[in-house]
Amino acid sequence: MQQIDLSDYSIFVGDIFPALSTFLKEKNYPRTVLIVDDNTEKFCLPILAKHIDVSDFLIITVPEGELNKNIDTAQIIWKTMMDNGVGRRDLCINLGGGVIGDMGGFAASTYKRGIDFIQIPTTLLSQVDASIGGKLGIDFNQVKNSVGVFENPKAVFVDAIFHKTLPKGELRSGFAEIVKHSLIENKAQWDRIKKMDSLEDVDWVSYLAPSLKIKQRIVEIDPFEAGLRKALNFGHTIGHAIESDLLETPNRLLHGEAIAIGMICESYIAHKIADLSAFHLQEITDFFIKIYGKIDLDRTTYPLLVQLMRKDKKNEKDEINFTLLNSPGKAIINQTCNEALIIESLDYYRNIRVEKGVMS
Amino acid sequence: MQQIDLSDYSIFVGDIFPALSTFLKEKNYPRTVLIVDDNTEKFCLPILAKHIDVSDFLIITVPEGELNKNIDTAQIIWKTMMDNGVGRRDLCINLGGGVIGDMGGFAASTYKRGIDFIQIPTTLLSQVDASIGGKLGIDFNQVKNSVGVFENPKAVFVDAIFHKTLPKGELRSGFAEIVKHSLIENKAQWDRIKKMDSLEDVDWVSYLAPSLKIKQRIVEIDPFEAGLRKALNFGHTIGHAIESDLLETPNRLLHGEAIAIGMICESYIAHKIADLSAFHLQEITDFFIKIYGKIDLDRTTYPLLVQLMRKDKKNEKDEINFTLLNSPGKAIINQTCNEALIIESLDYYRNIRVEKGVMS
Repeated sequence: MQQIDLSDYSIFVGDIFPALSTFLKEKNYPRTVLIVDDNTEKFCLPILAKHIDVSDFLIITVPEGELNKNIDTAQIIWKTMMDNGVGRRDLCINLGGGVIGDMGGFAASTYKRGIDFIQIPTTLLSQVDASIGGKLGIDFNQVKNSVGVFENPKAVFVDAIFHKTLPKGELRSGFAEIVKHSLIENKAQWDRIKKMDSLEDVDWVSYLAPSLKIKQRIVEIDPFEAGLRKALNFGHTIGHAIESDLLETPNRLLHGEAIAIGMICESYIAHKIADLSAFHLQEITDFFIKIYGKIDLDRTTYPLLVQLMRKDKKNEKDEINFTLLNSPGKAIINQTCNEALIIESLDYYRNIRVEKGVMS
Repeated sequence: MQQIDLSDYSIFVGDIFPALSTFLKEKNYPRTVLIVDDNTEKFCLPILAKHIDVSDFLIITVPEGELNKNIDTAQIIWKTMMDNGVGRRDLCINLGGGVIGDMGGFAASTYKRGIDFIQIPTTLLSQVDASIGGKLGIDFNQVKNSVGVFENPKAVFVDAIFHKTLPKGELRSGFAEIVKHSLIENKAQWDRIKKMDSLEDVDWVSYLAPSLKIKQRIVEIDPFEAGLRKALNFGHTIGHAIESDLLETPNRLLHGEAIAIGMICESYIAHKIADLSAFHLQEITDFFIKIYGKIDLDRTTYPLLVQLMRKDKKNEKDEINFTLLNSPGKAIINQTCNEALIIESLDYYRNIRVEKGVMS
């Protein structure tokens, strides 16, 4: 197991149960609340219960999915805690993916003006993305994460044992964030990743720990996204637009699958207006196609995609904001380009030839 | 005007408008939201608008009163801000009493994970009580302030000009907190206060500023109410029980009016089990009766009062927790006493003879 110490809490990566037992024993909270959703209650809670005595825990199960990450579910959590007499000195454990971490953390941070909470993220994406940075919240008025707070957990416990509970696509989706971290900050890690042929039998700790350290470094320097933290947006300007566009369709993509496409397109833009070489562009393109396959992009959706990019909350003034690469491991933030080049980058992706056929 | 500098913001006390103008000019927020309730929109907004150009402000009016300090009203605030495109770098001004400060501050602190806000408390109570300490929140599930956060405003502006908009009882209620501050921490201020004969023509700045400094000192030493901050509970164990008991009756008391009674009773207890002299007990009793008059306490309500005290969230284990005085200016926290003495203290109050009749 590896321990990553942040300024005010630690992340435990690997076989987490001994560390979790020690944490609970040392802190000796009067009462522990465990928040799960329908899925993690079924698949992850039994794993936790094998190692930790949960018989005294107050278990709150909420309906799964982003659609339920809202103020109504937050109220159910608050009310259940209150009706069960949860006090200011008690602990809340959030066991689940990003939705549970964000919403459970928000509910805990606002219950009686804040009680302690720890995160046990169970999806690869939430392990690598949500365990650092203190961003908590719910969706409100159809806007993602529009109500929330910045608050750090008392500890985060990251264990690949929960991956076996995930559909295969979820693993690939989370992996895109690991690739992103290596591309923006860690060339050595990228050199290792680019040789991977599949996501079978991966030693996840050896990828998770370096990734978490990269995010830690960035977030501690720039907690409120004033500058450096924008590096984490690599692939997200175009990727997020594609994700949103396909959201309500049968071709819906998982977040990381869309970001993988975004990283290809934005690497093309970087090749054109930053210093990314043709060789590196090819290498990045080949890697993502190898792992993620390719989807059909329809040219008729381009205007909508650009419109979605314009709406991105990270933009300033009227310009679409990008994080680009000068080379693997070196990102530059606050880049802009004209619409023609964005279209060209989408065409670049559209014209990639693949042998194995479309992404599945 | 006096300026009190706390570790991360300042309180301006006196004629606040020049300082407020300077603040707004220097910060140059893209957009300003102003939260008011029905009353402060009618009575306080015109005063503000005389000195500050509010024509570009987004004004959000919420229904007045503690009953509306709830998640539904918070949702109205969030939604109105969102529908009007309020951004992460905008400002929220809360103009009103404790309800507006608590709820507006909570809404601002959770909107898009927190935007800047300033407080312009308009009641004496909120000026002296709520402007320091960062306690924000709403009532939820019939429990006061059970959902909220600790977050400091960017500045607080305290001006007695708003007192003229208040019913007379409100002024007397807020004044009880000023008396409390002097009794627990500032003998010189108490010696000045005890000579007052009425609350007419008071130079409020000269009372507000020292009171705020006392609270500042206490809260900065003990932000999360682990110890010293409990000194602020003087008068509140018994006072709050009386306030709750009468809440739904025609004899309903304002918060400070009930705390004034609590301070008399708890001074009696202090005389019995701490070092408060008979002389000081008499002095304190005389002062509160002079300013607040006296109400009829009914012996049949004693058991209920004691039961309410037992429910106080400040208790630990099964004991009723008091803050007592050893002498004016010297408080001791975490004191307990038996029920018989609590009853005796209520009888002490009940048996006080007054010439002017009951409190009105």
